[in-house]
Amino acid sequence: MKVAICPGTFDPVTNGHLDVIMRTARHFEKVIVAVAANAGKSPMFNLEERLAMLNECLADKKNIEVIDFDSLLVDVAHQYDSCAIVKGLRAMSDFEFEFQMAQFNRQMDENIETFFVMASPEYTYLSSSGIKEVVSYGGCIEGLLPNAVLKRLAEKFGKGKPSGKQGKE
Amino acid sequence: MKVAICPGTFDPVTNGHLDVIMRTARHFEKVIVAVAANAGKSPMFNLEERLAMLNECLADKKNIEVIDFDSLLVDVAHQYDSCAIVKGLRAMSDFEFEFQMAQFNRQMDENIETFFVMASPEYTYLSSSGIKEVVSYGGCIEGLLPNAVLKRLAEKFGKGKPSGKQGKE
Amino acid sequence: MKVAICPGTFDPVTNGHLDVIMRTARHFEKVIVAVAANAGKSPMFNLEERLAMLNECLADKKNIEVIDFDSLLVDVAHQYDSCAIVKGLRAMSDFEFEFQMAQFNRQMDENIETFFVMASPEYTYLSSSGIKEVVSYGGCIEGLLPNAVLKRLAEKFGKGKPSGKQGKE
Amino acid sequence: MKVAICPGTFDPVTNGHLDVIMRTARHFEKVIVAVAANAGKSPMFNLEERLAMLNECLADKKNIEVIDFDSLLVDVAHQYDSCAIVKGLRAMSDFEFEFQMAQFNRQMDENIETFFVMASPEYTYLSSSGIKEVVSYGGCIEGLLPNAVLKRLAEKFGKGKPSGKQGKE
Amino acid sequence: MKVAICPGTFDPVTNGHLDVIMRTARHFEKVIVAVAANAGKSPMFNLEERLAMLNECLADKKNIEVIDFDSLLVDVAHQYDSCAIVKGLRAMSDFEFEFQMAQFNRQMDENIETFFVMASPEYTYLSSSGIKEVVSYGGCIEGLLPNAVLKRLAEKFGKGKPSGKQGKE
Amino acid sequence: MKVAICPGTFDPVTNGHLDVIMRTARHFEKVIVAVAANAGKSPMFNLEERLAMLNECLADKKNIEVIDFDSLLVDVAHQYDSCAIVKGLRAMSDFEFEFQMAQFNRQMDENIETFFVMASPEYTYLSSSGIKEVVSYGGCIEGLLPNAVLKRLAEKFGKGKPSGKQGKE
Repeated sequence: MKVAICPGTFDPVTNGHLDVIMRTARHFEKVIVAVAANAGKSPMFNLEERLAMLNECLADKKNIEVIDFDSLLVDVAHQYDSCAIVKGLRAMSDFEFEFQMAQFNRQMDENIETFFVMASPEYTYLSSSGIKEVVSYGGCIEGLLPNAVLKRLAEKFGKGKPSGKQGKE
Repeated sequence: MKVAICPGTFDPVTNGHLDVIMRTARHFEKVIVAVAANAGKSPMFNLEERLAMLNECLADKKNIEVIDFDSLLVDVAHQYDSCAIVKGLRAMSDFEFEFQMAQFNRQMDENIETFFVMASPEYTYLSSSGIKEVVSYGGCIEGLLPNAVLKRLAEKFGKGKPSGKQGKE
Repeated sequence: MKVAICPGTFDPVTNGHLDVIMRTARHFEKVIVAVAANAGKSPMFNLEERLAMLNECLADKKNIEVIDFDSLLVDVAHQYDSCAIVKGLRAMSDFEFEFQMAQFNRQMDENIETFFVMASPEYTYLSSSGIKEVVSYGGCIEGLLPNAVLKRLAEKFGKGKPSGKQGKE
Repeated sequence: MKVAICPGTFDPVTNGHLDVIMRTARHFEKVIVAVAANAGKSPMFNLEERLAMLNECLADKKNIEVIDFDSLLVDVAHQYDSCAIVKGLRAMSDFEFEFQMAQFNRQMDENIETFFVMASPEYTYLSSSGIKEVVSYGGCIEGLLPNAVLKRLAEKFGKGKPSGKQGKE
Repeated sequence: MKVAICPGTFDPVTNGHLDVIMRTARHFEKVIVAVAANAGKSPMFNLEERLAMLNECLADKKNIEVIDFDSLLVDVAHQYDSCAIVKGLRAMSDFEFEFQMAQFNRQMDENIETFFVMASPEYTYLSSSGIKEVVSYGGCIEGLLPNAVLKRLAEKFGKGKPSGKQGKE
Repeated sequence: MKVAICPGTFDPVTNGHLDVIMRTARHFEKVIVAVAANAGKSPMFNLEERLAMLNECLADKKNIEVIDFDSLLVDVAHQYDSCAIVKGLRAMSDFEFEFQMAQFNRQMDENIETFFVMASPEYTYLSSSGIKEVVSYGGCIEGLLPNAVLKRLAEKFGKGKPSGKQGKE
């Protein structure tokens, strides 16, 4: 069975992440969404929240499983008997970092291939870090975040759910 | 009346920033220089200093006003009845971040357009962060900083004004 | 009166071009769409066709005028009493060429500023040259070309109008 | 059965191309190497030669088939019941063109996904066009071209097989 | 004796090229300016003209010699007992092509190193191809071309020497 | 005597750094490897360790000296009577930062030139920061780190020397 790993910090998951995960799920029999426990210095959401949001977004997808990891990605791949990592590329700045990581993973296990898919155009400019800056000032950006995230953002920033701009159910 | 917003952290303002502000002021009736209160983790100059330096540099410009903000840029634009943000682009690395921000701002209010102008060649390699590293070691780079900044840098680093290399008055 | 020039070869005009032209028309009193007579070695459409398609697309826009030119862009700017060139930037590869041109134009007349606006996300990957390759093999790409172009492409390639995929009226 | 298409002009095939094709063949049940009949203005090798060299290099690979095409890539994908195109990315300059093509293909058939794999480091700087310039002056670059190509280059440029620098058998 | 090769097509030589050549001449005992005989499809100046302009510009430089070549650059390096090629880098788009060439040259002779120096800021946006487009329409760009070139351009385009904008003597 | 400075933080030194240092040592009579005392917020190795590892790696190189510095690089150059800084460039993301630094150094002393050499292909994707992430999870990447570093990493992470994957002696 062909298994793909979709790794990330998902702080928080965006519609751009979901787009890549869902497209991957059409081409592989199983997709493991692997959430890095360590999300850098000051994550907006803790690991439990990040897992919960992903599980909420992907609840009805039969061949997608959400896990967390705190190890090398190749170890995750071995554990799930996968030899394919799938990542979305949005822009130039992703390119070099992702290629370095892909190269490192291949050097640790040459059977593990990283496949990149291009972000859908509407998510080209979308990043978790960018969106966090906007929401920290109360901004709401239509169509970029799933409802599971919008709901938690509203709680976190002590506001009602932003009116008139609905996320993707 | 056509109003343009020139946003930034200006920590400190460089001759590259002033070049973009002044060129913008030729094309718009009024320019609002909007200084982000939050300049990241460890700014070299606090908000008051950054405002003071800009005011000193732009004192004689009738159609330029310096303000600070701690909100979404689109809120600043609405407040000043502006629908144009003008930013300088120097290099590739600016490109992606700035385009993401421009895209976010358009999604929050589609009437707000971000216009980019290219940095003048002599300022292509100039960034506030780069220049801070140099001055922290006592370096002085001719022609890149206005006198209002050079003066404060000299005070901050406990030295006399760097001799023989004058800033722009 | 503030006049902007939107130059290009428009071989053919795409919805991405129209998006930039229309957004420019919101910020300037008049927009001159300037079609370069010389469209490189083997244009798909001759100058008359390119002008006709633009005129068809922009027929109901009161403050937009379509002209052709076979000279320096700064001469066009002088002729129409404009000191603003507005161009769309899609991607890195546009960046360097456009900045060189902007720099040359400023060196020839320092009052002429080139303002760049970012392509809308859905047109990020869209170029006239890319689309020509696709249509030459009979491909039809939904939502990227105006009807005025789709119609002429259908004639040129001896086919009926591509069914089921309508262009923008 | 999962089928991948590896398209290109292969003028000539390099060890970099073979690396991508072979890596793809580990992850898919069948790989179709699709050679574009139209290789631009002045190909070094005609279609027959390009097909012959690829067939020679891949003769013993059971799940790889070499074909030529003169149509849209999505048509090739449909014909071979494939919904995966796999391409190697070497450098920034590949990035934008390949993303545009991937986007076009998705817009023509949203089930067709383009997967990118990174070039192996030793082939990062390798391109067919670069290598053609070198060989046209009699240069020989160790380890970059398969023997099937070296042999034909030697014939074409009227020289004996470059001594001491063996290609990959 | 340390000898550096500065290769190019120089169609025509710009002040940016001269800047790189002169800076190289400070660090090496001898500089060979190597003019590629083959300047692509339709050079503006033939080989004799390109050599003449360079010789005129560099007449008083004792340690700089201008030659032409129609072979591999490593052969030129061997002939002049040089193991250093020096090139100017202006922009991203130079980067990949130049790195590929440098890599090829090192693979042909690992003792030959290519050293890159950055263009001076005022020449960042300057390219021979860009400037040719401008001059073909009668444009004159101050400070970018030496007098030896301006004179020939004036002859070629049947005009008097552009007034009021002097080149570098 | 021609002296080159190879500056860096070397946290830790990689085979990519050693490659650039050794190649530089072929072209200059003396090479000063200058280790920045300040290696950012949380270096993996302190200054003494970084110096010790470099000294161990370069022990038998007669014309290479390892020093540390806590000042402007141009001051180091003056102290060692050098007017050449040599740096390796791997990727686009290095490009802009390094060019800014080179430009600053030239503005402080126009006699000081920064020469860039391209990373060898096998080290294109290699960075100290990338490798630190991998080793922090117990990963071992063959051929990228010298033994002097592997030994210390094993000590630091409380493990035996990674088996079967030897560093460069």
